[in-house]
Amino acid sequence: MTETSLAKLAELVGGEVLGDPQLPIRGVADLRMGGPGTIGFLRDASRIELARSSGCAALLVPAPLEGLAAAQVVVRSPDSAFARIASFFHPPPRASRHEVHPSAVVDPGAVLHQPVRIDALVSVAAGAEIGAGSYLGAGVMVGRGVRVGRDCSIHPRVVLADGVRLGDRVVLQPGVVIGGDGFGYAPEPGGSWARIPHVGTVELGDDVEVGANSAIDRATLGVTRIGRGTKIDNLVHIAHNCDFGEDCAIAAFSAFSGSTRVGDRVQIGGHCVSRGHNSVVADARIAGGSVLWDDVDEPGDYMGYPLMSRVHWLRTLHAFRDIAEERGLNRANRRRSAAERSEPEHGDG
Amino acid sequence: MTETSLAKLAELVGGEVLGDPQLPIRGVADLRMGGPGTIGFLRDASRIELARSSGCAALLVPAPLEGLAAAQVVVRSPDSAFARIASFFHPPPRASRHEVHPSAVVDPGAVLHQPVRIDALVSVAAGAEIGAGSYLGAGVMVGRGVRVGRDCSIHPRVVLADGVRLGDRVVLQPGVVIGGDGFGYAPEPGGSWARIPHVGTVELGDDVEVGANSAIDRATLGVTRIGRGTKIDNLVHIAHNCDFGEDCAIAAFSAFSGSTRVGDRVQIGGHCVSRGHNSVVADARIAGGSVLWDDVDEPGDYMGYPLMSRVHWLRTLHAFRDIAEERGLNRANRRRSAAERSEPEHGDG
Amino acid sequence: MTETSLAKLAELVGGEVLGDPQLPIRGVADLRMGGPGTIGFLRDASRIELARSSGCAALLVPAPLEGLAAAQVVVRSPDSAFARIASFFHPPPRASRHEVHPSAVVDPGAVLHQPVRIDALVSVAAGAEIGAGSYLGAGVMVGRGVRVGRDCSIHPRVVLADGVRLGDRVVLQPGVVIGGDGFGYAPEPGGSWARIPHVGTVELGDDVEVGANSAIDRATLGVTRIGRGTKIDNLVHIAHNCDFGEDCAIAAFSAFSGSTRVGDRVQIGGHCVSRGHNSVVADARIAGGSVLWDDVDEPGDYMGYPLMSRVHWLRTLHAFRDIAEERGLNRANRRRSAAERSEPEHGDG
Repeated sequence: MTETSLAKLAELVGGEVLGDPQLPIRGVADLRMGGPGTIGFLRDASRIELARSSGCAALLVPAPLEGLAAAQVVVRSPDSAFARIASFFHPPPRASRHEVHPSAVVDPGAVLHQPVRIDALVSVAAGAEIGAGSYLGAGVMVGRGVRVGRDCSIHPRVVLADGVRLGDRVVLQPGVVIGGDGFGYAPEPGGSWARIPHVGTVELGDDVEVGANSAIDRATLGVTRIGRGTKIDNLVHIAHNCDFGEDCAIAAFSAFSGSTRVGDRVQIGGHCVSRGHNSVVADARIAGGSVLWDDVDEPGDYMGYPLMSRVHWLRTLHAFRDIAEERGLNRANRRRSAAERSEPEHGDG
Repeated sequence: MTETSLAKLAELVGGEVLGDPQLPIRGVADLRMGGPGTIGFLRDASRIELARSSGCAALLVPAPLEGLAAAQVVVRSPDSAFARIASFFHPPPRASRHEVHPSAVVDPGAVLHQPVRIDALVSVAAGAEIGAGSYLGAGVMVGRGVRVGRDCSIHPRVVLADGVRLGDRVVLQPGVVIGGDGFGYAPEPGGSWARIPHVGTVELGDDVEVGANSAIDRATLGVTRIGRGTKIDNLVHIAHNCDFGEDCAIAAFSAFSGSTRVGDRVQIGGHCVSRGHNSVVADARIAGGSVLWDDVDEPGDYMGYPLMSRVHWLRTLHAFRDIAEERGLNRANRRRSAAERSEPEHGDG
Repeated sequence: MTETSLAKLAELVGGEVLGDPQLPIRGVADLRMGGPGTIGFLRDASRIELARSSGCAALLVPAPLEGLAAAQVVVRSPDSAFARIASFFHPPPRASRHEVHPSAVVDPGAVLHQPVRIDALVSVAAGAEIGAGSYLGAGVMVGRGVRVGRDCSIHPRVVLADGVRLGDRVVLQPGVVIGGDGFGYAPEPGGSWARIPHVGTVELGDDVEVGANSAIDRATLGVTRIGRGTKIDNLVHIAHNCDFGEDCAIAAFSAFSGSTRVGDRVQIGGHCVSRGHNSVVADARIAGGSVLWDDVDEPGDYMGYPLMSRVHWLRTLHAFRDIAEERGLNRANRRRSAAERSEPEHGDG
């Protein structure tokens, strides 16, 4: 188990220690579950009472707090600092020494830059190249000519199909498939479909992370690209020729049809779908369950089907909730109007 | 092939035999496809003619029927009885004798409680413990410190990531991933994302079943929990720190964002999505395609986006279908109203 | 690298050469990226300028073009012809000579019709039969009694569960699961669920293709069937007892509940969901994000939730976008109406 001093951790996150800088810290904890040797964090003032009763030995705080038994580290962003400290204690699995499990099948034509950690029952095909520091979990299948960068964490049973390219520090959760063929067929006169071979590839930039059982398809002729630092959740589908910018966050169950273009720092909630051949401008935020049928041209918060500004959508849902009742009223109104209009006629008669 | 008497089967399901109790039964069948030695079931009166013409040797029925060639077993719930009898003839794969395929890689530090059945190309890491009677299908990857209970059926190519815990009689279909890292990142000042390590785990209670290629993430610091007896369909996503009660049924393609809490006996149809940090009360039933944005506080039948009572939603959809037409009418009305309001002025003039 | 003459390719697609029939062609290319030895295609007149500046040595065109440096092949459907020519240069992986990787585990009771190509760490169980020309990628798991036809391409890490049957030229992308158990349980009096064993199987017709991490469940008692030539995208769920016709195209993330019946040549966009036990008539086209709650009885273009004709839905969305504003107007109208109705009373007073 890693142990360090509070001072070292404060240095790591650029914070100021209030209390004993030599306090030994061995792990992170929730405010409620913390004990001796653990550090927790206080995101905002709403949890001050919890912080006061916490058993954590130290707390990351946005400003000095009175009445705390725990030592404090004052930082600008406690949750970001907590993330870094948690990563210090629990880094993603990487290779510190060269270990290739005897049951792994590494083709003599593959290149392993030492050290790498390759677990049981991994297959690495000819022409593949694995960067130093990278980890391939049990059952990972690496195709021909694949390039994996340095310090990557490829969890069990990931498939990297022939020729795909990964940057450095890429993290792929179990079951991810990178480089399946795109879904492209040309209609034949008799109603059947002619297969369009997918000759392109997939490139994941540095620090890209992808969640369990997600699938990113290779391009028809060029490259399906995911920009540096973009994070993708479980069971996401990214079709051929999509192009994602940097530092995006894409939640689970979103499906991006072919040639969708997504700018930098876009955030997309769960269960969204894009029509394909459309684009989302940088810094847009799309709430879960939305349908991206057209382009999104202005940064901002969007939601719904059809996609609207978040405010417009919430107002629309509110109105929609009443539609059945209002429709009854409208009908009654129309009947009344019709009656009123006919009354004068009777009155005239 | 298993063979038994009708009397034994009747005993298994607490039913009463009408006909020859010694009739040999060797399997289950559909009413239409049944032949000698098979038992079928009649759910309700709508299929009586089919039952009369069926070739099944015996039928499970809710009440004695006249004019049947087949023997009868009278039970309260024929489909539940059928499920039990079908499970008698076709139990999920388990281990009756100890068999570890020579190609499997079992770390010397793993514990196998005999008997277990471990098929080809399975990997079991150090510190894992597999309960007696359990089956690990071909290509299953079991991480460090995993605990699998008794009589579990872990189908081919499942991944159990480090430290996850399964109860007894758990059934996981091919491709399931238990214990991928949760999707949690802290925003950094420059717009990038700091990885939040997921130090927690996943616990599946006794008799939990999960469908093909579903993914259940480990908690950030605590436990993602699925209660005893809960059944989950294919391609379902359950995020970090979700907490599901007992005996729920969750259909395919539903996605539960982080920290969703679901009570006992909740039923959720396919293609639903939860916002996260919300809760669903015990005994609620949510129809397919719904969006769970807020809490569901009362048991009952719900549907839609926004979520409404099932009745309200169906009425709303009905109204929605007419919205384009009515809008035309409303516009016409407004034009007419505007005209009427302006007419008197003219009349005044 | 394959090389052929332009004349041979023209013969393959039934086209007419304008230019040198002996021109050597070694691959396909995008109009923008083409160079010597490549053939591209011009779908329609909108890209004529691009065609004129393209470096491709030859182009597939719907009609003779003036001012082209490249040789031309005139065909009725350039994209269909391009698909065929690309498949000539990049056929799906198949077996031309018999190769079984030494790390593969092939049960002595399995039948391999030579030649087959079986890559590393594949498992083929007893009673399975693999047709001549077929390829099983690394980590593929083939269950007992499975039948794989001729010239199939089964990509890495696919699971074929016990007893499923594949026709000829089937292509399965990485991570596909064929034959997981269906999601069927009978409710027990205490609120728990009795498992209904799934004794049926799955049949995929000739030329069926399925995308990465999709899952097709076995039938309860009969067969889940996918008709000849039907193409299915990534992360699609097809439940027990579904029956799909021929030449359908099903985009990513669609979920078909139990016993959905889909006719021939149906096209379904991404992120659709079917209720189950409903049917879609041949030649229907359903846009992405739709909910198939009822039967679709007439061919045509459909969209939305509730499902409507495409035209009706687009009009409805348009109206829906204004609903919040109109509701404000309606309310104002109602207040005005109420005011008008009460005014006369005051006037009377």
